[in-house]
Amino acid sequence: MAMAKAKSKPVLPLFSTFFCLFMAVTAADWNIVNRRNKNGLKISLKNYCESWRLNVELHNVRYFKLVPEECVGYIGNYVTSTQYKVDSERTIEECIVYLTKGCSLKGDGTDAWIFDIDDTLISTVPYYKKIQYGGKKLNITDLEAWMSGAKAPVLGHTLRFFNLLKAKGVDIILISARREALRSATIENLVQKGYHGWSDLFFRSDEEKDVEKYKSDVRRRLVKGGYCIWGILGDQYSSLEGTPSGRRTFKLPNPMYYVA
Amino acid sequence: MAMAKAKSKPVLPLFSTFFCLFMAVTAADWNIVNRRNKNGLKISLKNYCESWRLNVELHNVRYFKLVPEECVGYIGNYVTSTQYKVDSERTIEECIVYLTKGCSLKGDGTDAWIFDIDDTLISTVPYYKKIQYGGKKLNITDLEAWMSGAKAPVLGHTLRFFNLLKAKGVDIILISARREALRSATIENLVQKGYHGWSDLFFRSDEEKDVEKYKSDVRRRLVKGGYCIWGILGDQYSSLEGTPSGRRTFKLPNPMYYVA
Repeated sequence: MAMAKAKSKPVLPLFSTFFCLFMAVTAADWNIVNRRNKNGLKISLKNYCESWRLNVELHNVRYFKLVPEECVGYIGNYVTSTQYKVDSERTIEECIVYLTKGCSLKGDGTDAWIFDIDDTLISTVPYYKKIQYGGKKLNITDLEAWMSGAKAPVLGHTLRFFNLLKAKGVDIILISARREALRSATIENLVQKGYHGWSDLFFRSDEEKDVEKYKSDVRRRLVKGGYCIWGILGDQYSSLEGTPSGRRTFKLPNPMYYVA
Repeated sequence: MAMAKAKSKPVLPLFSTFFCLFMAVTAADWNIVNRRNKNGLKISLKNYCESWRLNVELHNVRYFKLVPEECVGYIGNYVTSTQYKVDSERTIEECIVYLTKGCSLKGDGTDAWIFDIDDTLISTVPYYKKIQYGGKKLNITDLEAWMSGAKAPVLGHTLRFFNLLKAKGVDIILISARREALRSATIENLVQKGYHGWSDLFFRSDEEKDVEKYKSDVRRRLVKGGYCIWGILGDQYSSLEGTPSGRRTFKLPNPMYYVA
């Protein structure tokens, strides 16, 4: 709302910024003082934000609409850090260990692996930077305009695994929460970043509101069609949960948003 | 093995310690140099160990027998840190939010909540300190001797939630991977630390090797008996996964060991 007003009245942004900063500091103080008093723990803002992030990844914190205002700086630092890259690469290395040592691939055209797209194959971090890495409310039209530009950068570690799957003859299936309208832009983005050779690519229709249900429904059709889903890789629990699932699922870190 | 030999030959421990330190440094060097070369990332030991821990919590790293030797110091620091306490308290706070806002309790004696015991109600950290916080191989006889002493400290944040459940009239059911032989020592430990008023307490028989299956089987009997399982709290995925599950599950952090 503050952003919408800002265009016509140039004085407001400064006031809004000041007001938001004031609110952030107040909120942070309130939380932290409150916590210190209640449990007798000396808890810093870093402790607080790190525990929030871990509990998001543990799927204990769910359905959040915004990154807590006092943690915007912490989350921004994390998703642009070496640690985020190392964390994500480790996830991929576990996928590779499982693929090479834990899967007895059939090699008859029924082996499949499923990927999510955003923040799994390509990154939305450049877009989320504009909205304080999840600290400001998402404008879906704005996000889709950015996606239409087909400029999302590659997540190189996932590309490496994608190519390993192809080399092993595993069918790759992409199931995205992106809307069907973004099909051509998405394909352009993926191909430009080095992804090609997938077997199928699913987009969401406007009627499908529940992402977990939509993704499970697609997997049910795939399994009925004879596929063995060896694994799923995604950054959201809604890509991994629901039945049928994969024989194993792998979750990439993502503390910027929650897709239910 | 080094520990067993140490009793009769006092020269060996020094040698073993030196040898282990040498191996740890070598292993760490090898991993880190290797990683830096492969992906072009400047990765520190802290980055490496933090990514290992996060991927354990994400359930991407599974079935590990030992904490990686080069991360023993990092994991020891974590489980004795304020951060571990804050992380665990946050998990409990999410349980409380869910219980008070997300559950429509029936109040007819069929409402249930399930807890794991070790590192959920009481802590094994003092024992694991003796074996380098999971860096040295577990001797199960030794661990059970420690458990028989009934000295495991309370996890105070869980006790707080346990008492809230009681106050709301929810039946509390404890399902432990501990063996039946530890029943009386476990009850003594729990009661001394302030836990009382649970509705049922299950121990594992010697025949039940698969913890996830054993815990699912108990839950199946509970559900058949009419219980609605609103939630499960545990530190291991084997306490949370398998069907039937709870309406929601909550995972406490634990990077010291993996129970399959």
